[in-house]
Amino acid sequence: MHIAPPYLLFIGDATDQLSIKMARGAADWCPELCIGEYSVSGCTVTTGIPKMDIATAAKNGAKSFVLGFANSGGILDEKWLVYIFEAMDNGMDIVSGLHDKLTDFPEIVEKSIQTNQQLLDIRHPSAEFVTGTGVKRQGKRLLTVGTDCSVGKMYTSLSLVNSMKKYYLDVDFRATGQCGILIAGSGIAIDCVISDFLSGASESLSPDNNKAHWDVIEGQGSLSHPAFAGVSLGLLHGSQPDALVICHDLNRTHMRGLPNSQFPSIETTIALNLQAAKLTNPNVKVVGIAVNTSSVSKEEGQHICAQLSEQFSLPCVDPLRDSTDCIVATLV
Amino acid sequence: MHIAPPYLLFIGDATDQLSIKMARGAADWCPELCIGEYSVSGCTVTTGIPKMDIATAAKNGAKSFVLGFANSGGILDEKWLVYIFEAMDNGMDIVSGLHDKLTDFPEIVEKSIQTNQQLLDIRHPSAEFVTGTGVKRQGKRLLTVGTDCSVGKMYTSLSLVNSMKKYYLDVDFRATGQCGILIAGSGIAIDCVISDFLSGASESLSPDNNKAHWDVIEGQGSLSHPAFAGVSLGLLHGSQPDALVICHDLNRTHMRGLPNSQFPSIETTIALNLQAAKLTNPNVKVVGIAVNTSSVSKEEGQHICAQLSEQFSLPCVDPLRDSTDCIVATLV
Repeated sequence: MHIAPPYLLFIGDATDQLSIKMARGAADWCPELCIGEYSVSGCTVTTGIPKMDIATAAKNGAKSFVLGFANSGGILDEKWLVYIFEAMDNGMDIVSGLHDKLTDFPEIVEKSIQTNQQLLDIRHPSAEFVTGTGVKRQGKRLLTVGTDCSVGKMYTSLSLVNSMKKYYLDVDFRATGQCGILIAGSGIAIDCVISDFLSGASESLSPDNNKAHWDVIEGQGSLSHPAFAGVSLGLLHGSQPDALVICHDLNRTHMRGLPNSQFPSIETTIALNLQAAKLTNPNVKVVGIAVNTSSVSKEEGQHICAQLSEQFSLPCVDPLRDSTDCIVATLV
Repeated sequence: MHIAPPYLLFIGDATDQLSIKMARGAADWCPELCIGEYSVSGCTVTTGIPKMDIATAAKNGAKSFVLGFANSGGILDEKWLVYIFEAMDNGMDIVSGLHDKLTDFPEIVEKSIQTNQQLLDIRHPSAEFVTGTGVKRQGKRLLTVGTDCSVGKMYTSLSLVNSMKKYYLDVDFRATGQCGILIAGSGIAIDCVISDFLSGASESLSPDNNKAHWDVIEGQGSLSHPAFAGVSLGLLHGSQPDALVICHDLNRTHMRGLPNSQFPSIETTIALNLQAAKLTNPNVKVVGIAVNTSSVSKEEGQHICAQLSEQFSLPCVDPLRDSTDCIVATLV
C-alpha cells in the first residue's frame, strides 16, 4: 500500500478539533505532503493549512483525497459520497481511516473502476500476514511504549525521527495506526490485524535492514491497559526493539476509557516492557521518557521532566515543547 | 453459533493421526455427540468410533457433517465438495475448522440456501465484538495457561470440567479453538478475532454468572511464545481468572515451531501469568499443574508429577493418566 501525495485533507462539516485528529496529524507532521484543506458549510475547525476546493486542488496536482475526520462509530455518512465522487472524477485516490470500508460501498467501487482511482482503507490491512518467528532481524529498532493509550506515542516517534535525522542517522518511521500511516504514506494498522498474525505483522513492519539503520516504530496501547495489552505485547515481541522510549501524559488517574482501572507508574511501565521485550531481544534498553506536559505551564513541565530524568537516570522531555534531541543525543 | 448434534465426523483420505486432531478431539471428549466416522478410499487412520456413510448417518439422525481433518494451509480441496453436497442433501449442516471458509465457495453457499442447511466456519468468529472494559464479572473462572502452544490446555480444561462435575460444581467449558468449539457446541476461536477486540471477545466468552458458577476457559498459546503471547495476554486479561492451571509437556527444548527460541521454566510461567492476570483480578491464584507425561512411562510420569508437586506446593497430575480430580479437590 502506498498513499500518493500530495493530499487534499477533507474535514467535512466537523465542529470538534478531536474529530479531525487524522487531518491535523498530517498537517502537523507532513505539511509538505498536504496541498490544502477542504471543508463544507457548517465546519468550524481547521488544521491551519490553506483552504482549497477539489477542482483547484486537482489543478495544483493533488493525488489523494483524504477523509480526515472521524466520528465515534467510524461510520461513512452517505452525504460524503458526492465529494468522494468529485475527487475521483478529478483524478484523486480516496484514503479513509474510518471503520466503514470504502470498498463496502458498491457505488464507490464502481466509480473507482470507472475513473481508475484507488480506494485505500488504511485502517484495514490488505496484506496477507504469517505468524511470527522471533528470528532476529538486522538493523536497529526503537519502539515507543506508553503508560496508557493516547499519551503521545505517535508524536514522540515522529519527533524522534526528526531528531535522528539531525544526527544524520539512517532512519524510517514505521506507522501502526491510521494517522501514522497517512503521515508515512504506508504502514500497518496493527490493532486491525487478526490476533494470530499480530507478531508476524509486526515483524513484517520493520524488515531486515542495514546494520546502522534505525526503524522508529509507533507503539500502540499499553501493557497495563485491560483492553489493549495483547496488542501492545504482540507489537513489542514482533518489533524486537533495541531501544524503548516510555511515553506518558500528566494528570491521568485511570486508563483511557476505563474509570475504575488503575494507572501504572512509569517505574512499572519500564519494568513490564523491559521484561516482555527481552523475550525477542535480550539487549533491549530504555533510552528515554517522553511526557506530554501540555496540562501545565512550560516551566512546570520542564521541572517535572527534570525530576523524572533524575529519578530514572534517563533523558526526559516533552517532545512537542522541547523536541527529543537529547534522547537521541544520549542514544548515539 | 450453535453446532447441532449428533455429528458425522468426516476424515477424508487422511493418513496422519495429527491431521485428524479435530475429529479425534470430538471422539475423545464428546463421543455421545458423535454418531459415526466417515472416511473415503485411501484413509489409513481412525478416531475409533463406528464407521458410517452419509445416508446411514442421516437415517440415524446425524445433524452436522464435520470436516474433521486439516492440512498445513487449512485449504478446502474441491474434491470434498461432492461429500459436502451429499451431506446437505441428507439434512446436515456443514461444520469446518479450516482456514478456507465454506462461505467463500459460491457453489457451497448456493447448495446451503437450496437445502436450508447452515454453514458453520467455526474458526472464523461471526459475532461483532466490542473492546474490553476490565469490569469484574460475577461467578468464578479458571483458565488453563501453558509453557508453550499444544501442551494440553484443551484436554486439561475438559478434564477439569469432568472433575468439577464429580464434585457437583456448576460448571461450563468455554472453548477458544476450533476443536474445543466442536466439543462444546459453541465458543470463540480467539486467535481469529481482530486484535482490537481480543480482550473484549474474551470477556464475552464467560459472561456474568451465578456467584458459585465456574467457567473453565481453554487457554491459547503462551506468554513466552514470541508469535502468540499477545493472544495469550488478551485472553488472560479478558478471562479475569480466579484460578490458573499451568499446563506443560515433558521433553520440550524450544517453543513450538521456533527451533532457536528459549523454553520457559514452570516457575517463570507461573510468575508471568500471575503478574499479568492481577491486572484484571488481583485475587488470582495458581491452583495446579497439568503435565503431559506421555513421553515417559506411567511410573516415571507419576514420579515427575510428585517432584513438581513438592517443588511448587501445588497438586500436579497428568490429566489423561491420572485425571484432574486432585486439582479440583484442592480447589474446593
